[in-house]
Amino acid sequence: MTSAAIDATALARALTAVENDPSALRSALAALPAPPGRAHRVGVTGPPGAGKSTLIGALGKAWLARGRRVGVLAVDPTSPFSGGALLGDRVRMASLAGHAGAFVRSVASRGALGGLSTAVQDLADVLDAAGFDPVVVETVGAGQAEVAVASAADTTVVVVAPGTGDDVQAMKAGLLEAADLIVVNQSDREGADRLAADLRAAVDLREAGPRPQVLSTVATTGEGVEALLAAVEARGPGGPEADDLGRRRLERARARIREEVERRRRQAFWPGRSEALDRLAADVAAGRSDVAAAAQSLLGRGGTEDNGA
Amino acid sequence: MTSAAIDATALARALTAVENDPSALRSALAALPAPPGRAHRVGVTGPPGAGKSTLIGALGKAWLARGRRVGVLAVDPTSPFSGGALLGDRVRMASLAGHAGAFVRSVASRGALGGLSTAVQDLADVLDAAGFDPVVVETVGAGQAEVAVASAADTTVVVVAPGTGDDVQAMKAGLLEAADLIVVNQSDREGADRLAADLRAAVDLREAGPRPQVLSTVATTGEGVEALLAAVEARGPGGPEADDLGRRRLERARARIREEVERRRRQAFWPGRSEALDRLAADVAAGRSDVAAAAQSLLGRGGTEDNGA
Repeated sequence: MTSAAIDATALARALTAVENDPSALRSALAALPAPPGRAHRVGVTGPPGAGKSTLIGALGKAWLARGRRVGVLAVDPTSPFSGGALLGDRVRMASLAGHAGAFVRSVASRGALGGLSTAVQDLADVLDAAGFDPVVVETVGAGQAEVAVASAADTTVVVVAPGTGDDVQAMKAGLLEAADLIVVNQSDREGADRLAADLRAAVDLREAGPRPQVLSTVATTGEGVEALLAAVEARGPGGPEADDLGRRRLERARARIREEVERRRRQAFWPGRSEALDRLAADVAAGRSDVAAAAQSLLGRGGTEDNGA
Repeated sequence: MTSAAIDATALARALTAVENDPSALRSALAALPAPPGRAHRVGVTGPPGAGKSTLIGALGKAWLARGRRVGVLAVDPTSPFSGGALLGDRVRMASLAGHAGAFVRSVASRGALGGLSTAVQDLADVLDAAGFDPVVVETVGAGQAEVAVASAADTTVVVVAPGTGDDVQAMKAGLLEAADLIVVNQSDREGADRLAADLRAAVDLREAGPRPQVLSTVATTGEGVEALLAAVEARGPGGPEADDLGRRRLERARARIREEVERRRRQAFWPGRSEALDRLAADVAAGRSDVAAAAQSLLGRGGTEDNGA
């Protein structure tokens, strides 16, 4: 609670700065009371309509009741063409909006297929350093990008519901294996018991690795939410199921450093080469050259200028 | 038909070589009769269960009947963890399998979130240079990765069906705007007319850009397939709707050259730095350093060695 003095406006400003420019992370963190690393980072993903936002709202209230400050980053599905986010934080997790201890922020996923996971982790660092714990990252969908973002957490919760059109087979395409906890939400609906049984069977068939626990909730009534919260907490820092946490955080740090190095190298390399790239692209498109020759030409030209800085 | 002499085994071997090592593309293309660039590249995407494979089978047979050789690259949804593909080319597009003029190949999407689009384009180059036209790339799903792959085509066809759990709202998250043609397949099912009307309404609401045409098919009976084929062909090289093709191919070439340059620069940079990366990652994970400082340390160390070659 050392950071109660950080107001929401300053925090929102810091997040915007980091979202717009990754190199702003350092100064944003320097202005905050502690380095990041204390918060339990919880990824929540699943298909549209599974009730993720409602569930996060219910979990959030339970955390708030325990005196915790809850940060939520909601990664919105965004059109890669128009750049517009489909949903906004204003309509999400309304149950948390009134609490001083909660902070909900939408993150647009535009343009940053590879970098989204890193960008979200930068923002999570800011919330973490500002004293929020847990920091929950919500993503929608079952694509690899969503799985990558959800997996960049200490604990990954996959939420499904009966009748959202996602069968167990589709779940196997990454989501199931990314999960530490699988939640069958809307478990009062028809088909929920069957879905939970199918998921347990699929989990039992896994050849290797830890088997995610399957839980059932009704987010709208709160049923099963306390049990889910306990299961999440058990996997957090200091929890009885946190064995894997150190290894995960190490891998995450490695991936983030790699991405930051790549970003800086791209930034050092490409400016000043756009005309050459245009010319080479025209040659390739017309069949006068190939991609390999064009790449070699760009690298040769920059052979002495590009020192990786 | 200059390349009728290339047998399927040699082609499969060339594709495997390129899939395993992007730098094999050049020699693979050199062994083929013509440079790539003649084939119409058609991306087909949509949710699981929409009937994409059946539709591609029906289109493929119609193309074969016109004396065309049809290449299909089926990008399988793959677990990012186990690396196993969920489906295989053996069970796909059975209706094309018996034809000498058709070639169907599965591509696993594992590990290459950012590079998948480029990898698939490398493989499409090989089929193109081997005389297949069209080259169809099938992807499953509505994630950004799938949209990126489908969009890396001359013409992008998005296939939906009533009752696959994907409403118009979800469609807007990229898929709709990636489409040149939207196909409501299984249009004899309940809800198909409503879905087509909703999609037309959504298309009409678009503020800018060309508006994709909405067509209806029943792939299992062939209904609407000839009309779809005509609409696809109109957008191919020399077709009446191909105005945009030159610009798309130029942008595609630009993106591919960039990716190839990045790949070579990564390959030149990272070997020899893995121990330093491990050490820095441990510092970051423990809160003794931050990502920016770690990146700077790696770049500084390599400042004189990394010449971008």
